[in-house]
Amino acid sequence: MTRKPLILVTNDDSVKAPGLRFLIEIVRPFGKVVVVAPDRPQSGTAHAVTVNHPLRLHQIAKEKDYEEYSCNGTPADCVKLAFKVVLKRRADFLFSGINHGTNSSINIIYSGTMAAVFEGALAGVSSAGFSLADYSMDADFRPSAAYIKEIVSAVIKNKLPEGVCLNVNIPSIQREKIKGIKVCRQAEGTWQEDFIERTDPQGRKYYWMTGVFIKTGHGKDTDEWAMAHNYIAVVPVHFDFTANKALKPVSNWFS
Amino acid sequence: MTRKPLILVTNDDSVKAPGLRFLIEIVRPFGKVVVVAPDRPQSGTAHAVTVNHPLRLHQIAKEKDYEEYSCNGTPADCVKLAFKVVLKRRADFLFSGINHGTNSSINIIYSGTMAAVFEGALAGVSSAGFSLADYSMDADFRPSAAYIKEIVSAVIKNKLPEGVCLNVNIPSIQREKIKGIKVCRQAEGTWQEDFIERTDPQGRKYYWMTGVFIKTGHGKDTDEWAMAHNYIAVVPVHFDFTANKALKPVSNWFS
Repeated sequence: MTRKPLILVTNDDSVKAPGLRFLIEIVRPFGKVVVVAPDRPQSGTAHAVTVNHPLRLHQIAKEKDYEEYSCNGTPADCVKLAFKVVLKRRADFLFSGINHGTNSSINIIYSGTMAAVFEGALAGVSSAGFSLADYSMDADFRPSAAYIKEIVSAVIKNKLPEGVCLNVNIPSIQREKIKGIKVCRQAEGTWQEDFIERTDPQGRKYYWMTGVFIKTGHGKDTDEWAMAHNYIAVVPVHFDFTANKALKPVSNWFS
Repeated sequence: MTRKPLILVTNDDSVKAPGLRFLIEIVRPFGKVVVVAPDRPQSGTAHAVTVNHPLRLHQIAKEKDYEEYSCNGTPADCVKLAFKVVLKRRADFLFSGINHGTNSSINIIYSGTMAAVFEGALAGVSSAGFSLADYSMDADFRPSAAYIKEIVSAVIKNKLPEGVCLNVNIPSIQREKIKGIKVCRQAEGTWQEDFIERTDPQGRKYYWMTGVFIKTGHGKDTDEWAMAHNYIAVVPVHFDFTANKALKPVSNWFS
């Protein structure tokens, strides 16, 4: 008899987020599941790690093939602490999400959901992150359930190449409108910020950041295109930031 | 007469860090310099952005061709706020650092210094980040001054290709030992964490994160190799996370 796979589940919207609860139910049939997730929302924390205050773990549940913990750190902290302190070994697989809000295109760079996925891949664990294009806390995750299950199953069956993980983004549409899964590249895009200026009772100015996402590319092979055309976008991502095409021209500056 | 270039300078070690002061002195002769930097150390904040509390700006200095501000946000916040509120336009160039500590290899993913650089590049600004492989606050930045000047000058002269920025890492060695500048790729590597477990006066456990960097590749064309061989490592980086080589194999899972 083969050993059940050990699966770590985490997110960045906190242990209480409906998206996490939904993902847990999907992955439980696949193995022993351990959840280590932030005790409060951590959206926009990106790949931050905690070095200035100590980390705490709180056990929430322990039953057959299932354990659950909350942690006062970031998603990246959760993964590091899970492998080293909770599991005392790497998990076999890591699934993060389901995020309330998209992490397609450049959003990946700000994403705590995907930071957890990168931490998994950095430790050599096959890892995937799921995000639904609906920021509300009562977002409906049910329409894509069968596809998420298919992706989880494919990751467990095939395992990911070393250093590669998956960024899965799901359009917020009805089940019958979803056309399928599209493996694609990260779309070009950026945020155009705006700041709302206010004055506090002491007469000092302060600013709230707001912004809109601007798509800057128009390829049909991107996550943005796939989602706009009712596909679930799967982007294989890595953490090598080298801009290979620029190596030669920049070298010429210094020769 | 051509207009002086407008240069934004920032960092993640705070407005008071000696590395920032050193970089300001290097770039001032090149144009009008505006500094917007965090009011406290932000190492390890990565690409975090502040959405749960308002941002504040504090003017520290204003003189001919020079302004300086501190901000209560992250390095990414500083850049967004600088372009939109302080400058009311994009800068022509952005330089970040000099970080107290290396951002070579996978360290880039945790780096606030480089998050600021990515923000610059995302806004279409030619941007470069500098880091010295010495974490102490009395690190000596002088040995590499001429090289940093050469890189700043090359960025201003040539401008970077769209979507590309520079991650510059400097070995902490004497001036006469520095062999020159090497343009190279990001080395493979990861952090192996460890957690120190302690018990608070209430009997509850808490954890301090520690860790060691593990180099996992052995190429001679990497930033780690260059620094170990007394070169200043310049890696052109971008923010497209797509693992192109994995597109085909992962596509096959779903066909």
